[in-house]
Amino acid sequence: MQLPVHDPVALTRALVDLPSVSGQERALADAVEALLRDQHHLEVRRDGDAVVARTSLGRAERVVVAGHLDTVPVAGNLPSWTAAPGEGDDPAAGEVLWGRGTTDMKGGVAMALVAACTVAEPVRDVTYVFYDCEEVDSARNGLGRLARTMPDWLTADLAVLGEPTEGLVEGGCQGTLRVDVTLRGRAAHSARAWRGVNAVHAAHEVLARLAAYAPREPVVDGLRYHEGLQAVGIHGGIAGNVVPDACTVEVNHRFAPDRSPAEAYAHVQEVLAGLDVHLELTDEAAGARPGLDRPAARAFVEAVAPVTGQPPRAKLGWTDVARFAALGVPAVNFGPGDPQLAHADDERVPLAQLVSCADALVRWLRG
Amino acid sequence: MQLPVHDPVALTRALVDLPSVSGQERALADAVEALLRDQHHLEVRRDGDAVVARTSLGRAERVVVAGHLDTVPVAGNLPSWTAAPGEGDDPAAGEVLWGRGTTDMKGGVAMALVAACTVAEPVRDVTYVFYDCEEVDSARNGLGRLARTMPDWLTADLAVLGEPTEGLVEGGCQGTLRVDVTLRGRAAHSARAWRGVNAVHAAHEVLARLAAYAPREPVVDGLRYHEGLQAVGIHGGIAGNVVPDACTVEVNHRFAPDRSPAEAYAHVQEVLAGLDVHLELTDEAAGARPGLDRPAARAFVEAVAPVTGQPPRAKLGWTDVARFAALGVPAVNFGPGDPQLAHADDERVPLAQLVSCADALVRWLRG
Repeated sequence: MQLPVHDPVALTRALVDLPSVSGQERALADAVEALLRDQHHLEVRRDGDAVVARTSLGRAERVVVAGHLDTVPVAGNLPSWTAAPGEGDDPAAGEVLWGRGTTDMKGGVAMALVAACTVAEPVRDVTYVFYDCEEVDSARNGLGRLARTMPDWLTADLAVLGEPTEGLVEGGCQGTLRVDVTLRGRAAHSARAWRGVNAVHAAHEVLARLAAYAPREPVVDGLRYHEGLQAVGIHGGIAGNVVPDACTVEVNHRFAPDRSPAEAYAHVQEVLAGLDVHLELTDEAAGARPGLDRPAARAFVEAVAPVTGQPPRAKLGWTDVARFAALGVPAVNFGPGDPQLAHADDERVPLAQLVSCADALVRWLRG
Repeated sequence: MQLPVHDPVALTRALVDLPSVSGQERALADAVEALLRDQHHLEVRRDGDAVVARTSLGRAERVVVAGHLDTVPVAGNLPSWTAAPGEGDDPAAGEVLWGRGTTDMKGGVAMALVAACTVAEPVRDVTYVFYDCEEVDSARNGLGRLARTMPDWLTADLAVLGEPTEGLVEGGCQGTLRVDVTLRGRAAHSARAWRGVNAVHAAHEVLARLAAYAPREPVVDGLRYHEGLQAVGIHGGIAGNVVPDACTVEVNHRFAPDRSPAEAYAHVQEVLAGLDVHLELTDEAAGARPGLDRPAARAFVEAVAPVTGQPPRAKLGWTDVARFAALGVPAVNFGPGDPQLAHADDERVPLAQLVSCADALVRWLRG
């Protein structure tokens, strides 16, 4: 198929209408690969259903522009359609493209493809990375695979990940970890409760500490982060007539990128110190510093400023920018679409944002 | 089949080896009915799989002796077998009968059948009640059905329910009610937790009040009860990255028979007063006063005292004595077997207790 590479709106729509739920990205990867192989200024490689392409102009700096090709499952919202803004949208935003992947993140992929196809001589060398399986189990993540199979292709001074930010620059990302906090008691019939020890009752001290917790809001590389320590789940109980012998509070800690996962976990231990609890770390992912002090990043911020007129802000959720950070590459998130609509059945993106984000990226690469 | 009505041990064993899981009591009810119809001093009625029989000697008092015929499902523990005492048993107790129903409550049914068949001229008139479906949904309870279909057969000055008490007299029973205590919050992504309100965190005050709760131990009709207010379950949480918008604590209140369910529920409301919670009463059952001040009850306590040499105590768990209480009949629990072993895979009863309990009941009825 022929993709309309000069029109971000038409291109986004074409990409959206090529369904690519995680694990089923082949057709879309084939189309992207064919498009990039037509661009004689690019060197192209294929790895599974990931496609990478780069210029080699000997520039002083190299940047990565990346996006994932997959989406979460379709929810009756394909093929795409254009319509008026939805509830909660800015009514002045004009027409909106609706459908699975419009926000997360084929608008961002289209932005990258427009730049790849229309900027033959960028002022900084560019590596474009389109990858598979971002929306599923981390072990299947295509960017993680590329980091193992062709790490030299990911080396750069800055990475721009086209995840939806409504055209803002969101720098770095916070780390995340999950801890199961388990309290132990002793079961007994609830009619003779004094023979037991109620593990659910004992959880009150854990919850009181979480409720009283005052999160840090540290400034890292000029951006203010906002941490959190939240019970995201609790369960306990055996039957309606039994004193529970166990209660588990699932805690999610979001931490700024000035702390490593180990430091963040030590902090959780400190918050719960002195309580008779068993902690089990079930999940952890490091954050990423924004790296906005790098020249390429400063230039990027200047180039995209007109899109929203707002300064960069910290990315609070975890994204694949952390995979670049792990490779020593500072990274920012920048793309069209409201991140709150990602995965939603009413996922959509304003057409104007598709255009302004692509324009900004092109402007930055042209210098 | 011919049941050995003069030997409580052989009779218990015969009853146990006629499996009668709730809803499948027919064969056992048939055997019990045939046995009772052979006793010419008894008038016998059948209602579904319940069998009732009574003397009509014009005595000044009438007592009910009752027991359920059904058991919880068999767990590979039938047919029964006799063996040495198990772990935790009194090693001096001698041989033990193992198998489903030995404790809950075919030992008690055998005790009642021995009395029914061997005491032709009791000093107080007796109504024997053997019923179905005690171990399942309350709506199916055979005693509840008899209370509707033939209430005059349950009228008495005292009821003795042969539930396992290790031969102690356990008077009345505590009431029970369950309340779902729900806290509401507002969901948000856990990376931006301040946009939400964590309902699980809010539960800390509910749990703190339950943990600090000091239960009453009131004396009712001479017996000391022991109340309780316990979280028997807690659940909350949507996903590992979402601030929970709801948390529910399931609370079980066990209350002494000097309070009605309505009074007990008002007490729970009082304990949680001032908290921003929604209460939903999901289950309630009134308790039963022990009624040990009645002459028939005093005589019963004297007659069975030799079994353990211990004074009567309060029944803390809820039992079908409460169904008699609702009919205005005070009731006590008295039977062979350890109630802690009811429903257990290693359910068992000491042979000596089968004999001593049956002897005591016979002694009481002979005056």
